[in-house]
Amino acid sequence: MNAQQRIRGVLSTVVTPFNADYTPDAGRFVRHCRWLVSQNVGLACFGNTSEANSLSVDERIALLDALLEDGIDPGRMMPGTGLCSLSDSVRLTDHAVRTGCAGVLMLPPFYYKGVSDEGLFRYYSEVVQRVGEARLRIYLYHIPPVAQVGITLTLIERLRKAYPQNVAGIKDSSGDWRHTQTILDRFAEEGFDVFPASETFLLAALRNGGAGCISAIANLNPAAMHQLYCHWQAGNADDQQDALNRLRNTVSRQALIPAIKAALAHYLGERSWATVRPPLVELTAEQRAKLLSDLAGVDFTMPDLPRSSG
Amino acid sequence: MNAQQRIRGVLSTVVTPFNADYTPDAGRFVRHCRWLVSQNVGLACFGNTSEANSLSVDERIALLDALLEDGIDPGRMMPGTGLCSLSDSVRLTDHAVRTGCAGVLMLPPFYYKGVSDEGLFRYYSEVVQRVGEARLRIYLYHIPPVAQVGITLTLIERLRKAYPQNVAGIKDSSGDWRHTQTILDRFAEEGFDVFPASETFLLAALRNGGAGCISAIANLNPAAMHQLYCHWQAGNADDQQDALNRLRNTVSRQALIPAIKAALAHYLGERSWATVRPPLVELTAEQRAKLLSDLAGVDFTMPDLPRSSG
Repeated sequence: MNAQQRIRGVLSTVVTPFNADYTPDAGRFVRHCRWLVSQNVGLACFGNTSEANSLSVDERIALLDALLEDGIDPGRMMPGTGLCSLSDSVRLTDHAVRTGCAGVLMLPPFYYKGVSDEGLFRYYSEVVQRVGEARLRIYLYHIPPVAQVGITLTLIERLRKAYPQNVAGIKDSSGDWRHTQTILDRFAEEGFDVFPASETFLLAALRNGGAGCISAIANLNPAAMHQLYCHWQAGNADDQQDALNRLRNTVSRQALIPAIKAALAHYLGERSWATVRPPLVELTAEQRAKLLSDLAGVDFTMPDLPRSSG
Repeated sequence: MNAQQRIRGVLSTVVTPFNADYTPDAGRFVRHCRWLVSQNVGLACFGNTSEANSLSVDERIALLDALLEDGIDPGRMMPGTGLCSLSDSVRLTDHAVRTGCAGVLMLPPFYYKGVSDEGLFRYYSEVVQRVGEARLRIYLYHIPPVAQVGITLTLIERLRKAYPQNVAGIKDSSGDWRHTQTILDRFAEEGFDVFPASETFLLAALRNGGAGCISAIANLNPAAMHQLYCHWQAGNADDQQDALNRLRNTVSRQALIPAIKAALAHYLGERSWATVRPPLVELTAEQRAKLLSDLAGVDFTMPDLPRSSG
């Protein structure tokens, strides 16, 4: 598999629907993912926006299997498989690879702080060796604002040298374009796929050799992001980027994950979409009203949203 | 069960022994725990020092079951059962309660940062309600230097009000005596058991109504800590405390978890004790030599250490 065949473009860190008792709702999850894929957006399920660390490994596997059973192409999937526990990470990564997922998005173990690059290298190295599959594609997940433990340039270099086929790219959720630019400058040419987390950097990334983006807001606005990905060299690319930015700025006036879920609940007419697992809390009625009022003022469309069949 | 019957005194956050392939070594774990209990120290297995978050839930359950099968009294156990995932925390807490453990030590979900007390209240509340056992005793685990997410006084108050029988105490790993003192002043009289994490605060805690301590260094020096717990009103209590402090100051010149394991490996003549799971790394040869040389200059004894029977 060469770099050209790897997963690229816009991926959504898929929000996870819960029932009122906080159990995951596989049916709604499958419908939402089917819709995202129909909008040409890949599935970074079990990322930060997915409340993935609030799920057990078994719950992640059951949700992934529900997508596969529904016939969704695993070549469009990049599930999050990096956990604090090496044994959990190996189990989940192994399952993702053997079911044909295009790649896995791997957080570093994030409980201990101030750990060394040597310790993180060993962690990723153990996963690669234990899974032992040539087709494994790891996308490192750099999200220091949340995980606190980050992925240094030195660590990328060392992992690339040791596992050039397996360590395929990075999701950079630093929120710092200069950092994304540095990674692009240093690693993109050799086929390392760099995805900024926010679609606000999509155009800049594509102009600098990036692979696309992996975005939370893609849950709401996938088509417009895919359009920009396809037509980033068009004359109106900056305008397209501006439109994406306006939506993000609007949604992120509230806590991002509850806000995305509240918006989905509203547009789909399915109240239970608003449910988040503790320790997150849903928006208050006031926050929700403000969000929906703000969104009404933004020029964006959510075409063909999947409605409950039940 | 009233406050007098609850677990008190010195507990050790038990280090977890690994084999060379990083699998947990249940045999060595049981031997070490049996020795700690023989020294009158309780078992806070699966705490920070235990590399518990580097274990899967199944691995924790298997290790806990190995202790129970060996006949160790669950009334001496306070396993760590707080994870990022609500479903995992409920499963592990349920297992601990149903097997008769004296209590459970519960980290807050630590992945998301800046979460609200409301979200943390819901998390603990869901665990209490789903486990649904009157004998459940939760000890909140406040360790902001590592977990980043802490337990506020307001949260303690709210949880105590909602679940006065179940929310039994706290392990305060803030490392800040003034904070421990504040918790003691506010909650100790009503039967809330406060354990500072470090034995350096053992005497101060006992003089202020504390329940004991839950200590990493207790893996090396349990008898002396239990002595101070029993005789804290004796004339030489301050000298006893000074002796404990000297050992901690010596060990903590190195990274604490690898250092404790290196010391055990040395004194037990079992090299594999030194193994830590990634992302932690063992001491270098130089660090190890320094540690052992420093320890040789400290007046402490490790009586009756359990040696491998194999």
